[in-house]
Amino acid sequence: MPSDPHPLDVGLLSPVSAGHDAAVSDAAVLDALVAAEVALVRALASVGAAPAEVADDVSSALGWTGAGEGCRGHGLDAADLAGAAVAAGNPVVALAGMLRQRVPEAARPWVHRGATSQDILDNALMLVARSAADRVRDDLDRVEAALTALAAANRDVVAAARTLTQHAVPTTVGARAAGWVRGIRRAIVRLDAARAELPVQLGGAAGTLAAFVADLGAERAAELPGAYAAELGLRPTDAPWHTERWPVTELGDALVQAIDAVGVFATDVATLTRTEIGEVSEAAGGGSSAMPQKANPVSSVLIRSAALRAPQLGATLHLAAALAVDERPDGAWHAEWPTLRELLRLALGASAHTASLAAGLTVDREAVARNLALTDGLVVSERLGIVLVPLIGRERFTALIRQAADTDLADLVRALPEASGLDVDDLLDPARYTGFATTFVDRLGEGENR
Amino acid sequence: MPSDPHPLDVGLLSPVSAGHDAAVSDAAVLDALVAAEVALVRALASVGAAPAEVADDVSSALGWTGAGEGCRGHGLDAADLAGAAVAAGNPVVALAGMLRQRVPEAARPWVHRGATSQDILDNALMLVARSAADRVRDDLDRVEAALTALAAANRDVVAAARTLTQHAVPTTVGARAAGWVRGIRRAIVRLDAARAELPVQLGGAAGTLAAFVADLGAERAAELPGAYAAELGLRPTDAPWHTERWPVTELGDALVQAIDAVGVFATDVATLTRTEIGEVSEAAGGGSSAMPQKANPVSSVLIRSAALRAPQLGATLHLAAALAVDERPDGAWHAEWPTLRELLRLALGASAHTASLAAGLTVDREAVARNLALTDGLVVSERLGIVLVPLIGRERFTALIRQAADTDLADLVRALPEASGLDVDDLLDPARYTGFATTFVDRLGEGENR
Amino acid sequence: MPSDPHPLDVGLLSPVSAGHDAAVSDAAVLDALVAAEVALVRALASVGAAPAEVADDVSSALGWTGAGEGCRGHGLDAADLAGAAVAAGNPVVALAGMLRQRVPEAARPWVHRGATSQDILDNALMLVARSAADRVRDDLDRVEAALTALAAANRDVVAAARTLTQHAVPTTVGARAAGWVRGIRRAIVRLDAARAELPVQLGGAAGTLAAFVADLGAERAAELPGAYAAELGLRPTDAPWHTERWPVTELGDALVQAIDAVGVFATDVATLTRTEIGEVSEAAGGGSSAMPQKANPVSSVLIRSAALRAPQLGATLHLAAALAVDERPDGAWHAEWPTLRELLRLALGASAHTASLAAGLTVDREAVARNLALTDGLVVSERLGIVLVPLIGRERFTALIRQAADTDLADLVRALPEASGLDVDDLLDPARYTGFATTFVDRLGEGENR
Amino acid sequence: MPSDPHPLDVGLLSPVSAGHDAAVSDAAVLDALVAAEVALVRALASVGAAPAEVADDVSSALGWTGAGEGCRGHGLDAADLAGAAVAAGNPVVALAGMLRQRVPEAARPWVHRGATSQDILDNALMLVARSAADRVRDDLDRVEAALTALAAANRDVVAAARTLTQHAVPTTVGARAAGWVRGIRRAIVRLDAARAELPVQLGGAAGTLAAFVADLGAERAAELPGAYAAELGLRPTDAPWHTERWPVTELGDALVQAIDAVGVFATDVATLTRTEIGEVSEAAGGGSSAMPQKANPVSSVLIRSAALRAPQLGATLHLAAALAVDERPDGAWHAEWPTLRELLRLALGASAHTASLAAGLTVDREAVARNLALTDGLVVSERLGIVLVPLIGRERFTALIRQAADTDLADLVRALPEASGLDVDDLLDPARYTGFATTFVDRLGEGENR
Repeated sequence: MPSDPHPLDVGLLSPVSAGHDAAVSDAAVLDALVAAEVALVRALASVGAAPAEVADDVSSALGWTGAGEGCRGHGLDAADLAGAAVAAGNPVVALAGMLRQRVPEAARPWVHRGATSQDILDNALMLVARSAADRVRDDLDRVEAALTALAAANRDVVAAARTLTQHAVPTTVGARAAGWVRGIRRAIVRLDAARAELPVQLGGAAGTLAAFVADLGAERAAELPGAYAAELGLRPTDAPWHTERWPVTELGDALVQAIDAVGVFATDVATLTRTEIGEVSEAAGGGSSAMPQKANPVSSVLIRSAALRAPQLGATLHLAAALAVDERPDGAWHAEWPTLRELLRLALGASAHTASLAAGLTVDREAVARNLALTDGLVVSERLGIVLVPLIGRERFTALIRQAADTDLADLVRALPEASGLDVDDLLDPARYTGFATTFVDRLGEGENR
Repeated sequence: MPSDPHPLDVGLLSPVSAGHDAAVSDAAVLDALVAAEVALVRALASVGAAPAEVADDVSSALGWTGAGEGCRGHGLDAADLAGAAVAAGNPVVALAGMLRQRVPEAARPWVHRGATSQDILDNALMLVARSAADRVRDDLDRVEAALTALAAANRDVVAAARTLTQHAVPTTVGARAAGWVRGIRRAIVRLDAARAELPVQLGGAAGTLAAFVADLGAERAAELPGAYAAELGLRPTDAPWHTERWPVTELGDALVQAIDAVGVFATDVATLTRTEIGEVSEAAGGGSSAMPQKANPVSSVLIRSAALRAPQLGATLHLAAALAVDERPDGAWHAEWPTLRELLRLALGASAHTASLAAGLTVDREAVARNLALTDGLVVSERLGIVLVPLIGRERFTALIRQAADTDLADLVRALPEASGLDVDDLLDPARYTGFATTFVDRLGEGENR
Repeated sequence: MPSDPHPLDVGLLSPVSAGHDAAVSDAAVLDALVAAEVALVRALASVGAAPAEVADDVSSALGWTGAGEGCRGHGLDAADLAGAAVAAGNPVVALAGMLRQRVPEAARPWVHRGATSQDILDNALMLVARSAADRVRDDLDRVEAALTALAAANRDVVAAARTLTQHAVPTTVGARAAGWVRGIRRAIVRLDAARAELPVQLGGAAGTLAAFVADLGAERAAELPGAYAAELGLRPTDAPWHTERWPVTELGDALVQAIDAVGVFATDVATLTRTEIGEVSEAAGGGSSAMPQKANPVSSVLIRSAALRAPQLGATLHLAAALAVDERPDGAWHAEWPTLRELLRLALGASAHTASLAAGLTVDREAVARNLALTDGLVVSERLGIVLVPLIGRERFTALIRQAADTDLADLVRALPEASGLDVDDLLDPARYTGFATTFVDRLGEGENR
Repeated sequence: MPSDPHPLDVGLLSPVSAGHDAAVSDAAVLDALVAAEVALVRALASVGAAPAEVADDVSSALGWTGAGEGCRGHGLDAADLAGAAVAAGNPVVALAGMLRQRVPEAARPWVHRGATSQDILDNALMLVARSAADRVRDDLDRVEAALTALAAANRDVVAAARTLTQHAVPTTVGARAAGWVRGIRRAIVRLDAARAELPVQLGGAAGTLAAFVADLGAERAAELPGAYAAELGLRPTDAPWHTERWPVTELGDALVQAIDAVGVFATDVATLTRTEIGEVSEAAGGGSSAMPQKANPVSSVLIRSAALRAPQLGATLHLAAALAVDERPDGAWHAEWPTLRELLRLALGASAHTASLAAGLTVDREAVARNLALTDGLVVSERLGIVLVPLIGRERFTALIRQAADTDLADLVRALPEASGLDVDDLLDPARYTGFATTFVDRLGEGENR
């Protein structure tokens, strides 16, 4: 066995995340863990339990940078801590000891005072989650803006709509893009809701805050969770949630929903980019060393890889929530941490790639038109039926459509005596059969996020 | 091979759902499918397109019973329809034909007019989902009330809190129950939100409503989705959601969250019911033919079986959403139907079992007290440390705790000269170290977090 | 709410399974449950414990039809049993009572004697699983034969190979089909292995067979599991597997693998059927009422819907296995039954649809050739590079490929002085650059299932 | 936001893997990627295509260390490569360029010659997987040996068997351990099978090896895959498996099965370690800073956290397999890499922790006996029924068991006139009712089922 106990992982096998996941790196987690400890000392001071200078000393010794932020420059090493975490099953036991070494002696008794490992770890996860979710939100905003612009720019570009892989009726490129926008907007609504809910955790050994009450008295102990929430920039709660894990699953669900929303866009792009279809192309296709002509839809492919993975990670979070037995569970809580982090990582990578994909996507209107014409007019057969069936009956109409496999459809229609009064060119013009496609684009502008 | 092409399935292998899933049975789905078709005719009349008597005739021929309800007494057979559904890949193509046979001739052209199969099926799923979710909601209300009462009744019953399977510090039975309540209340919030969002679907062949526009004119066509929503009792939307599937995943997420919430309660009950623990018992334990003394926690077991299955069904809904390519996807949509139904079925069964479990749960306070005493006072070692470490130092304190394996803890403490001023009985009384356990029960009454 | 407590489920929302899942219907499960009970009486007689006439009486009263088969004509009703199953959490407690009513009085003490519910239910599941898996196996054989023939028939049909959605280099339709065949063959190997492993279950109350030993003596009790296995046609084991669930997960994994194998074929068919590609078509495309020209790839779509669902069901089986605590778990076992059944149902439906899809698939060679020509020769750019780079260098070659966007590639190559000796027609002929595509078809014939 | 684009990840949030996952680190993946490239050059030389000295030069320049091993000392940096991987969607395009810089000029044209990125990446994954799976295998061997010894040592220690959380009948600690052993042994069988199947990948751009044929001639090209397999120490195949992904899913299934097997053991240990049960304890329980008396079952908890996560990762591999469209899929392949790696990481960590858990587990026989006595003899009520029901009838027997809640069971039995001839002490002795519990331990030695 290789002797290095702490191999580095830079995401070599996760190109969707590579370069986008600093917010959830071990370094970021460590910064958040330290911040969760420092904030507790600050909260103890803020309720009048700890001396103010202890809070100041600890803050400055450990690199406190403000509410909602991780500590920086504390000098702790993630690899050291990861190694030490194995014995206790979590990194916090070792962390508290390390931190005490780094603060003035008078401050040491105040570090981790009254808290349990879960308090610190859950708050650190919430900090990391919020930081990552903020970035995802920013990227989704960019996606939303780019796709809204794309929808507007292609509002009237008539294209074949496809159902079950087959050309169905006309639509517009704008209407398709408007659908993507609606999915993204809703994902933003949900992500915002989940971000706003991220709660502070403070329960002590088993969720009663008994050590705080014994140590500080009930009055100060009662103020502590709120003060701690303020220091961390997290939502105050009316009770700890050590084994009520909906804040984690709701965030997880929102992240999966965000990845779904970019996933359906990426899946459409991958399809529309096919050599035979060619209606859209990525700004910077990926090259192939062997086949110089190829421009692979790399962003779509990577986003799709995230969309194929995220739902099962979300399921693991739910399982962990449902099995959160006792006052701290025997494995379910531990299953959450790496799973939530991987889900954040996927959301970060997928949303970043989608932002550049959406910004750079080009539409080949010639290809769109060429494809629309592929069925020689049959793409409007539904409209034809609406008009002709009342005139010639369902049976003759079906026969006519069958004939159209060999004969020009316009000629067939013109040959119908019953159709003599019809404007056949209009009738067969896909642009005259797009229903509310453009309306659905226009409604994007009216609107709230729905 | 048995020749019956349509074997009946009554849930023989799903005792958690048996008897609770009528709302999602094939009969209920069929009733909803018919209602989706009838409501469309009614909406066509309501916008002035179809004659009012057509709507009346269709309504009465097909058993319309009102907005939000399925049709009854239409005489269609689910097995016939299921057989016919295979050729087209969905039951709606055959359904429309069957319904036309059942209405007056003048009404036939108005049946399924302008719609696509997905419109009908999605609306039927939404109707079924709402009906089932309403029942789940009712049962969660019963759970919430029963557990709130349980928390109040056991507000002050001191019990051992357990973390990572080991006794940690004291808590109260009421505080534990209050945690369950908080999870249930949040699940209700989320389920209510998802129920309120269930949207009408109307897009026609590929989401543009082109057939409606061509057939009825743009003005009436524009009013149609709203009119249809009103007939169905579903939320109006500003565009179809054929391939933006968040209404399905959000409902799925809420159902999984509800099952998580009852699952964590059932998991605690299953644990606390263990022969060695015995702190709670189900009202009606399941018997064993071979072992007459046994009373199995059957409800908990069944609820847990649902909690182990639900998250993966939720994941499938998300995958289907992320892969919803084109204007109607090539498999992802079809994967949704049975998955959503199974998830509804699990939620129905799990919430119904939890309602009776919560109502009938009894707490054995003697067992609670006996267990609390098991560690001979060490359950308050945290408190002891808060008091003694300042007096005797960490090292001597740790040694004292180690000694307590063999010697009575109270004697050890009393033997300390430094502890002469302490009330040792109070110090070692678990009831004096429950922190805010009772507060967290009391706060349930203040109604936050709902 | 419908008052029927046992709604029928005929798969209205699962068209992939409808008509194919009789082997896993409640009726089939019930037949298997009865067979598991009858086989135990027969085994008791076979080891000399029960009188031979008791075995005969029970067999004839309850419709015994032979080893490995379910009982028929026993007159039990699945709905009755499902209702009764809820109280005990499984149907076996009620079943044993019902069966005793149906056999002669002298035989009653021998029914369910010494067994536990899990013995009967696990054996019934194994019988149902084997019966279903046999059918899946038969359908996979048909798939394998049809696709092997398809590969042979299209051995030399040159086609564009696609990577990351883009034309890459040539391949042959036969080589692509040979890939499908290899996946199917391997799935058959795995399914055969899993079928051969399906074990008998006999442990009594908690896996020690103590009741049998006490009742029959150790010698006869020791022979009983083997005798029971023989009656059931299941594999004998050296110990019960009440909480060692690999027989279930291995079967589950094999079923998922089978569905993967047909899923990748269906996914390719769905793609190749796209209006713009059109290289293959299903024999009987599904119609659309609104768009008469459409022929939807319904089989592919339904198969894909199964492939999107199956993996998560397999995951649930693994979770249930990993959480099989104690001598009978508190929910994990119960989560298995409906999950395994649904997975069998998906495998039955997916393999049946694939058998007809494979048998009826047609290849449009004109479309294949038309697509192959779409890149105007660039599909052989890799070959061109192998030949030209040594002559003109990488830089000029890349420039030439870039020029080919506007100018005929053959002309560009012919214009190169360095290429004067080359047979440009040959060089640009895709048929001359298919490598071992045909070899990989030919090797199918040589072969074992790999 | 930290500016480092390549944050280090040392598993801070995955204590189950920390310190055990060097075999799957980015460094190990990089070594394997380089080895896959070097082995190809060596294979080209071995079939007589490349000069022998080219193979030697490349081998020594890039740190070739032998078949089945990764290259060492090549000087490449994983972080550099990860950054470069994003543009092409995989690291191989950049890798080939970097490697060419590190070999003598004459060797450069032979690097990556004829190969596609997928060839290199798939082979690297197979190398990493084998190396990791070998370690898992070693640890499972240690687990198997320790648990077999534990079973033997506790062969006759009578204990309460528990079903649905309740005491059922007696078993022995040895029998319970024998069940764990059987699960482990089977997992080893499956893992060995999967390890033996890990195949070489060589297909070129789209699975036809056309570039090799064009470049080297058909004869040498035909020998190349076998030669490459020999250099890599992987199984030769008769065709590439670019989109037939069963080698990945079968390995994944075997890894999940291994984690299931250790998971069920860890779940039992976590349960049996409960304060109220206390039948077993981990050698080195994890401490708690706040509660000095606690010894947490940290290993069990961490192993369980892996068992809760692994099945969903296995599901993702199957989804990727089922969606492997075209000749290289548009996302499914990319979803595999990090998922397989995480699954390997979990298997490495879980098996390593289980090896030390199994080696250090102690059984508290006093606690076992104390628990067995908890039901005051009712744990043998099944046996009592076998003996008494024939004497006093079912009804009186049930009443007697009910009476035993208040009165001593032995006294009740002795008071029965019909029981006068019975040895009541023997009848109520749990040790006399263990059936084949010891037999199932003894059969471990006979080595079946391996």
